[in-house]
Amino acid sequence: MENEFIVASYLITGKYDFNKKAKGIAVGLTVGTWTELPEAKKERMAQHLGKVIDITELSPDLDGRPRAICKIGYPVRNLTPDIPALLTTVFGKCSMDGAIKCLDIEAPEAFLSQLPGPKLGIDKIRERLGIKDRPLLMSIFKQCIGMTLKELEEAYQNQIAGGVDLVKDDEIFFRDDAAPVMQRVRRFKSLSRQKEERTGQVTWYAVNLTGPVTEMADQAKRLVEQGADCLLLNVLPYGFDILHRIAADPDVPVPVMAHPSFSGAIYPSGHYGVSAPLLLGKLMRWAGADIVLYPSPYGSVAMPREDALAIAGNLRIESAVHQRSFPAPAAGIHPGLVPVLFRDFGNDLLVNAGGGIHGHPQGAAAGGKAFVDAIRAAMAGESLKVAAQRSPELQAALDQWGCIEE
Amino acid sequence: MENEFIVASYLITGKYDFNKKAKGIAVGLTVGTWTELPEAKKERMAQHLGKVIDITELSPDLDGRPRAICKIGYPVRNLTPDIPALLTTVFGKCSMDGAIKCLDIEAPEAFLSQLPGPKLGIDKIRERLGIKDRPLLMSIFKQCIGMTLKELEEAYQNQIAGGVDLVKDDEIFFRDDAAPVMQRVRRFKSLSRQKEERTGQVTWYAVNLTGPVTEMADQAKRLVEQGADCLLLNVLPYGFDILHRIAADPDVPVPVMAHPSFSGAIYPSGHYGVSAPLLLGKLMRWAGADIVLYPSPYGSVAMPREDALAIAGNLRIESAVHQRSFPAPAAGIHPGLVPVLFRDFGNDLLVNAGGGIHGHPQGAAAGGKAFVDAIRAAMAGESLKVAAQRSPELQAALDQWGCIEE
Repeated sequence: MENEFIVASYLITGKYDFNKKAKGIAVGLTVGTWTELPEAKKERMAQHLGKVIDITELSPDLDGRPRAICKIGYPVRNLTPDIPALLTTVFGKCSMDGAIKCLDIEAPEAFLSQLPGPKLGIDKIRERLGIKDRPLLMSIFKQCIGMTLKELEEAYQNQIAGGVDLVKDDEIFFRDDAAPVMQRVRRFKSLSRQKEERTGQVTWYAVNLTGPVTEMADQAKRLVEQGADCLLLNVLPYGFDILHRIAADPDVPVPVMAHPSFSGAIYPSGHYGVSAPLLLGKLMRWAGADIVLYPSPYGSVAMPREDALAIAGNLRIESAVHQRSFPAPAAGIHPGLVPVLFRDFGNDLLVNAGGGIHGHPQGAAAGGKAFVDAIRAAMAGESLKVAAQRSPELQAALDQWGCIEE
Repeated sequence: MENEFIVASYLITGKYDFNKKAKGIAVGLTVGTWTELPEAKKERMAQHLGKVIDITELSPDLDGRPRAICKIGYPVRNLTPDIPALLTTVFGKCSMDGAIKCLDIEAPEAFLSQLPGPKLGIDKIRERLGIKDRPLLMSIFKQCIGMTLKELEEAYQNQIAGGVDLVKDDEIFFRDDAAPVMQRVRRFKSLSRQKEERTGQVTWYAVNLTGPVTEMADQAKRLVEQGADCLLLNVLPYGFDILHRIAADPDVPVPVMAHPSFSGAIYPSGHYGVSAPLLLGKLMRWAGADIVLYPSPYGSVAMPREDALAIAGNLRIESAVHQRSFPAPAAGIHPGLVPVLFRDFGNDLLVNAGGGIHGHPQGAAAGGKAFVDAIRAAMAGESLKVAAQRSPELQAALDQWGCIEE
């Protein structure tokens, strides 16, 4: 491992001598200085020296500016195995060094094996939920802030009545005076248990994990003690490292669902930032997200299809060191889109719906049922329109939002 | 406080009905839904409802796309007083909602007073260092990774010999097997003490604070026990909240220096991200940075002058709740630039030099001395060229890098 490299790919835009620019990064972000070192010292420092691995010049951008993809290798031995060290090394100072976007990072197994990866991953989540191969279905509270425990209980009950597998908190739910988090976890757990006893279906509540980052691991343990099945985390606002530490903590035996909040400050620019497939795909999985929410390619403001698919690819590609994570491309999802979701993302997927459940003309329970029926039909290779003949809820949803079938 | 608002300003680019777009954010990121609420519930939820405060349409951007600055208010009562809650609320989901950049956040004193702000700030740092009104001078190790303790000791000794006030670690110094951090702190402290006994000058070592975010507060305490005077922190890779918690921790009685690593992934785009004055100015200060490093307007790849000045403005503006922080605009700084630095930034400043000290033809000690003499001259309103007649070190620096005087 100690002779291996972490390789970062950058898109650099501007009138540069790209070889010189890349060399400057490779030296500057590792040993700091090279040519002026005495020979004896060079020998010792060589093991820490970054190297330019490849420069591929691209056609100029729309403004006629030259562009190149530069691949730079950083010796693994320079870093501790954590995301802050990784980001600081490959895109710390360098992020401010002109129009430069970090497209990808490849890391050797020996480095990755020291990052936790998902605690459960796709297979063990399926096992716990008792869902063999269909996509998971998740519903989002329509409102959280200001709601009383009683109101949220009713909303929870309505959502699980439709047959969803998970219900998640709003990611902006921080002040919950009228419905304190420990009470929510206990009450929703009890509603889920009642449902399980009645129907056999397991339902999880993904509770928003908040608080000082120094106390978050303890808070996670307390939530688990109260019955939390799944934790929702605003990974970027809190930092990747707390995800890492919670994922690696054996006393927090539940999966973490990563919310992409703030990620739009980082991935969308063509010239700056970190690509969506790296930020929301690789880094989230390496740091320990079991499920990753991100913008679908279908909403009114959508992520480019290519990026949305690449995130799913990075979350699910087989790896010798890490479990696979569930992609959850969200926004603009309604039952009539389920066949398209299957076509684009396959069935190792979390179908996440807010408006597509709550906006159902017959309410949230019917909204959930419409999705369940749409997923069942898609799994069976049946047309939604045909399936809707047996499901008035699905029919109403198709009437409301339309149906996109191949 | 509970009826007050946190106001975020966004630059939104695109063919939008800006009023509708802003309204959507104001409702969506607070109570979630509004028009369909029953009247009785509206009454209760009104206190949590976001509001559009102002829409100012701008001239279209260079590609002819419409633009507007939208100001949206979020009730303080919706948030916990920490940066992750703030970022998630005002720029969490909303960051992914099209071409939208967060330009500024204004928060009421009652909210800000629950954020720590700098532990010491400019005045108490000046007091501890015994520096009445001149800028502080900091030197950066030329190399850290791979260096032995003995080599770093020599480098430290050379740097403090020139009269710098602080010496900082490389921010990429994570693996320090040949010079473990606790040993560095003890040895450099002892060298600083010897220098103080000899000359009366206090010198600080800004040590890189690393490790799991869950153990960082303890690590900070251990470093302080060993004699650390100042902590260097990669705030964005680790997350703002750990800065907050360390700044608020009475058992860590030393200042924190914020490194801007990874910030270039967030501030430079004209359409996305968070403006530099907000990210590196306000948020860093609110979360507790005593000193903030950021790109100067002078280097080869520079921050726009306007932004660099605005960061300094946000760090130093008088506030009823927070101490003022030292701006440290870095990169491309040499002794001949000191009068320009004074003109642009005044003297409540940390002058941070790497190449401008190590690249001195007579070595790092002479490089430090050249800066000390340049600062002394600038404070006295004396021309550097005149001062250089008494200082061969300054003269050599001016010969090497030139001199920019008004």
